[in-house]
Amino acid sequence: MNSTTRRGLLKGGVAMTAGLAAGKASAAGPDPLITELQDWASYTGAGVDETPYGMPIRFESHVVRRNVEWLTASPISSINFTPIHALDGTITPQGCAFERHHSGAIELSKDDYRLMINGLVDRPLVFTYDDLERFPRENHVYFCECAANTGMEWAGSQLNGVQFTHGMIHNMEYTGIPLRTLLKEAGADMSADKWVYVEGADASSNGRSIPMEKALDDVLVAFKANGEALRMEHGYPVRLVVPGWEGNMWVKWLRRVEVVDVAVESREETSKYTDVYEDGTARKWTWVMDAKSVITSPSPQMPIKHGAGPLVISGLAWSGHGQITRVDVSKDGGITWETARLGKQGDTKALTRFYLDTTWDGKPMLLQARAMDETGYVQPTKDQLREQRGENAVYHNNCIQTWYVSPEGIAENVEVS
Amino acid sequence: MNSTTRRGLLKGGVAMTAGLAAGKASAAGPDPLITELQDWASYTGAGVDETPYGMPIRFESHVVRRNVEWLTASPISSINFTPIHALDGTITPQGCAFERHHSGAIELSKDDYRLMINGLVDRPLVFTYDDLERFPRENHVYFCECAANTGMEWAGSQLNGVQFTHGMIHNMEYTGIPLRTLLKEAGADMSADKWVYVEGADASSNGRSIPMEKALDDVLVAFKANGEALRMEHGYPVRLVVPGWEGNMWVKWLRRVEVVDVAVESREETSKYTDVYEDGTARKWTWVMDAKSVITSPSPQMPIKHGAGPLVISGLAWSGHGQITRVDVSKDGGITWETARLGKQGDTKALTRFYLDTTWDGKPMLLQARAMDETGYVQPTKDQLREQRGENAVYHNNCIQTWYVSPEGIAENVEVS
Repeated sequence: MNSTTRRGLLKGGVAMTAGLAAGKASAAGPDPLITELQDWASYTGAGVDETPYGMPIRFESHVVRRNVEWLTASPISSINFTPIHALDGTITPQGCAFERHHSGAIELSKDDYRLMINGLVDRPLVFTYDDLERFPRENHVYFCECAANTGMEWAGSQLNGVQFTHGMIHNMEYTGIPLRTLLKEAGADMSADKWVYVEGADASSNGRSIPMEKALDDVLVAFKANGEALRMEHGYPVRLVVPGWEGNMWVKWLRRVEVVDVAVESREETSKYTDVYEDGTARKWTWVMDAKSVITSPSPQMPIKHGAGPLVISGLAWSGHGQITRVDVSKDGGITWETARLGKQGDTKALTRFYLDTTWDGKPMLLQARAMDETGYVQPTKDQLREQRGENAVYHNNCIQTWYVSPEGIAENVEVS
Repeated sequence: MNSTTRRGLLKGGVAMTAGLAAGKASAAGPDPLITELQDWASYTGAGVDETPYGMPIRFESHVVRRNVEWLTASPISSINFTPIHALDGTITPQGCAFERHHSGAIELSKDDYRLMINGLVDRPLVFTYDDLERFPRENHVYFCECAANTGMEWAGSQLNGVQFTHGMIHNMEYTGIPLRTLLKEAGADMSADKWVYVEGADASSNGRSIPMEKALDDVLVAFKANGEALRMEHGYPVRLVVPGWEGNMWVKWLRRVEVVDVAVESREETSKYTDVYEDGTARKWTWVMDAKSVITSPSPQMPIKHGAGPLVISGLAWSGHGQITRVDVSKDGGITWETARLGKQGDTKALTRFYLDTTWDGKPMLLQARAMDETGYVQPTKDQLREQRGENAVYHNNCIQTWYVSPEGIAENVEVS
């Protein structure tokens, strides 16, 4: 394929067209690209045998997960971020879906895989991967958000990119077995006051306690995401899916589900994933991710390149309590609001894409989005949230985010009071 | 990461567990994997910085697109197949979604990209990629099926793998602009007797005529699939999405939409993508993909490994006319039928996953699936289809497929009369 070298020859041609009305369709005329320079129509491209498993085209090599080196001591106990600024629609491809692990992503084969269900059960059981495939399974699209997503914003507008402020989220179609099916198989005590303690096969084990009511509701023991096997870093071959609840409970490389009398009070639910109020008491068992939204374009990584005129403002909204019912967008920092168009009616506990198809007058904007869910809950401002939670908080920051957009179309992460 | 070498040490341990009840969860006991050999809990795995864009784990390296060398003269004018036997749910990841092109996949940057709308329009227009991003866009999940999918089955059961008999299909969430929006922008003549002629920027141009009614209905000028940019082989940066209609009309690297008085009768709609009846007349303008279904597991590439007992039979159903309303499964070659469970209510013109959660008696089966859609249409048998279309047909084979399953769980592609 000689396309790569030929592309270089086109640069002159592209420059010649830069005078086209900025971002506006031009009346067809002497566009040198159309009339002279379409050399890609004169060669043959890549064959169908060249990409048994395809990767993004090289022009999109910037659309990748990124981590920040200063966040944790080591990348094996850290997080990276979905490039949500560059995505559209609702599905997150696995290859660029954020991932967090506490002791690195382990390589565990289906043959080696075992899942134990024990504790307050009639029949403690160990399942192989093949066993799991024999139970009735379901498909659901759910978002997974890290409890720490947007956590840096508690202390101010520190990170200039929606990938970093809101990118600890992804949204995939999961295939799995309802956890209640396996609990029934083991004859578990399903009384309302019981809990399940779930842990992974990695060194961290990342154990978490889940109340029986949730375990019996919509939790999945999942082995596929977006149709294919879970990637290694997403818990291959089996992870837990805990819809609407914080991501650290979605235990990867799921090894064991123990039915217990009381919550285990593990490290991950005491010293971590708990917020300390100003008075020293702790906000604990904060499982559900409240309704939240953010504008992904324009945003600091996605400036407006075309000047005044038609502009599509787009973003994502989600709620751990169910469906998003409405998203409003403000251009003036929350003084006035317009109701956005939902890309399509979102699934429950899944990302919903919203658009505001508008006209930009070229003046500065203070862009905000505000989500509402089926419970009537309205996404709060940052100040409202700080008032409730104090200044020590790390987790569960679902505040309204503000981007300042300059007349040049540059977007910045700012705070408005 | 030292996991790769450590895995080797485990092989002995795995063998020791082979005596577990075949595919049945074992009562928890002295499983050496659980009690002794979980060494993946004793090392740290891969860091979050190791996979900016992740690929499937090495254990899944067989889940890839495949082409067959004998089908066409060259892989740059050929097709490969989605590994649907190994997928579940409904979404197809782009990286393993089948692709077909007539002169190779070209490498066309967003900067170089232009889309012309001309012909019977008030204002011929040329759009840049940035222009397109300024129009209101929508998100829809649609299947894309090659007209030749299952084409080899006309002459008998020749290919022993559902990937090859039915893998010319994928199902993605597309983000794009309704074509009608761009036609309006150009002031197109939208009379019902007009057509649009669409062509790609590749050497083949792959021009196809589309009636105005369809062009104004649900056709999208799409630039994202499953949230991210189209892959090169799927038409980066812009392709046409023609919901429910044969895949060759979903023009990739979309260059031009011309509004015309009469169908162009291009090569791709005369010598190709037309079926000749026994009497020499042609079945032409066969756009819509009729309702169809197939069992993906068990299937020749997915034998039953666990013997008699609980068995999940799973597959895909779809219709170019709208929603799938019901899928039936037969174990005896179409004599008796059971209604399958739909994984979730499918979108219109999108793949629907079905399951039959059953118990296998260990005896031979002749497995079939039969789809019904919202129009009341019922998927025909192979013989019914041959009766209508004759023996020369290549395209639009939506017949009921049969897998013979032996007592050993081996599945074979067979025909029943």
